[in-house]
Amino acid sequence: MLNSVERQIIHYIKDLNEPEILNLYNKLAKGKRLRAKLILKIAGNSLRVIKTASIVEMIHGASLLHDDVIDDSDMRRNRPSINSIYGNKTAIMFGDILYSKGFYELNDIDKRVSKVISNAVVQLSLGELADVSLSEEFNTDRDRYLKMIYQKTASLIEASAESASILAGKDSIPYKIYGRNLGLAFQMIDDILDITVDSQTLGKPAMHDFFEGKTTLPYIYLYKELDTDDKNRLKSLHSKRLNTKDEAWIKLKMKEYKIIEYSYNEAKKLIDEAISLMENAGEFALSAIAKEMIERDF
Amino acid sequence: MLNSVERQIIHYIKDLNEPEILNLYNKLAKGKRLRAKLILKIAGNSLRVIKTASIVEMIHGASLLHDDVIDDSDMRRNRPSINSIYGNKTAIMFGDILYSKGFYELNDIDKRVSKVISNAVVQLSLGELADVSLSEEFNTDRDRYLKMIYQKTASLIEASAESASILAGKDSIPYKIYGRNLGLAFQMIDDILDITVDSQTLGKPAMHDFFEGKTTLPYIYLYKELDTDDKNRLKSLHSKRLNTKDEAWIKLKMKEYKIIEYSYNEAKKLIDEAISLMENAGEFALSAIAKEMIERDF
Repeated sequence: MLNSVERQIIHYIKDLNEPEILNLYNKLAKGKRLRAKLILKIAGNSLRVIKTASIVEMIHGASLLHDDVIDDSDMRRNRPSINSIYGNKTAIMFGDILYSKGFYELNDIDKRVSKVISNAVVQLSLGELADVSLSEEFNTDRDRYLKMIYQKTASLIEASAESASILAGKDSIPYKIYGRNLGLAFQMIDDILDITVDSQTLGKPAMHDFFEGKTTLPYIYLYKELDTDDKNRLKSLHSKRLNTKDEAWIKLKMKEYKIIEYSYNEAKKLIDEAISLMENAGEFALSAIAKEMIERDF
Repeated sequence: MLNSVERQIIHYIKDLNEPEILNLYNKLAKGKRLRAKLILKIAGNSLRVIKTASIVEMIHGASLLHDDVIDDSDMRRNRPSINSIYGNKTAIMFGDILYSKGFYELNDIDKRVSKVISNAVVQLSLGELADVSLSEEFNTDRDRYLKMIYQKTASLIEASAESASILAGKDSIPYKIYGRNLGLAFQMIDDILDITVDSQTLGKPAMHDFFEGKTTLPYIYLYKELDTDDKNRLKSLHSKRLNTKDEAWIKLKMKEYKIIEYSYNEAKKLIDEAISLMENAGEFALSAIAKEMIERDF
């Protein structure tokens, strides 16, 4: 079924009548298509549903194009990023083209769906900006962090599930919570993996988030536990390239206070709620997706 | 009436509930609000019309934010650009926020209007990309150039006039042509001013377009007239910092072949058509706007 989504996206791209754009699109790594998968599992595979899934994936692709420019990333899903091949100008404009084509096509789907998805893009862009601002200081405010990852990561997954439930005529509330929890947990687990997985497996330097100024949940929790001297030591390392000794110290302290387990359990609680909501609704394909997510490699 | 548009934009920005965004918005130079002005002159000042004008100006602002990142511009309307104050990351994301908030609010206006405007944003983004591609070579193809300026500059002005005519229940065709011609002529005149006006008046180096690789209409026309040797000389100067001698030579050749008059007349023909369409429709405020445009300083 995901193949119909790929075909529909190509169809939308060809509509633009610019061979250059099709060429750019073919250079994009496709990813897991999580959002499309959720939409199809919730709402079936009518043309309207396939179109919605395609639009959401185009919008998600646009956000990643801008994200890579903002983070100066050379790679995306083990492929060179568009900004690294064609430069920032092309990546920004190609993102704008995918966004606007997506919004244009939403007009022919359903007004409620169009509002849910365009509101998620507002949240997503606010979240990207908050991510940049939060990285400028040593943030220890859990609520600000959770709001940011809700906006940046969870909002479009939540909107995908909600939109699909609207198209399917199902009660939106459990699907919306499912999507939000899935998105939050996904980001929390990603943040944990940045600490626990070695750089070779990760394909990027380990503990890169902290170097980039991002105090993800484990750092926020660790900071809370430390005594004043250690608090100051952690703070002094923020945004710096860590040496082996400092890296080991942080990991040791996290072990001492069981920070990873604690953070992992927080993600797991969200996933458990998502699973039970979907099992109650008889949506076993959706609860299986949630289970898979929490079983990612630690 | 433009004040109601300013107030409505502030209202939309405050909706976002992020003081940082309001602060960024206040740093933006407001510009002439040409698109809002056209919309109000065509469709009056009901709340729906004011909202549409505000959305179009937010979208136009978003496109300028991205444009300044792409062109590495430090100034916009005699003020420091957002990218020069806060960096590219913030400018890209703030642009995405204005775009998506605009698209979100369009859902509550009218489906036809929403399609017209979102289609214009697709064109606008394609035009920005074409502008970059065309600058990479010495383009002598007039049609490709006209298509690019239609997409980049005229499409959103055309869409503004068309949207307003839809909201006002007027026949769209003359307004659409009016908007398109106004947009094309505006860009053509801007291209001429880059050649004829000295750098001090312009606030940027004169003949900057050619240095940036942009062969605007006067260069395309001049190239056509020159003999083979001179064609090669002009081509050899493309994308280079011009010395006084080369600059004078280009201006002399343009004088010899009456290139500026010829280019100006092409813009004037478009404006004349726009004026006569509006006078036939009894829209004298709109024909006056077109007249003003062609009377800009040469």
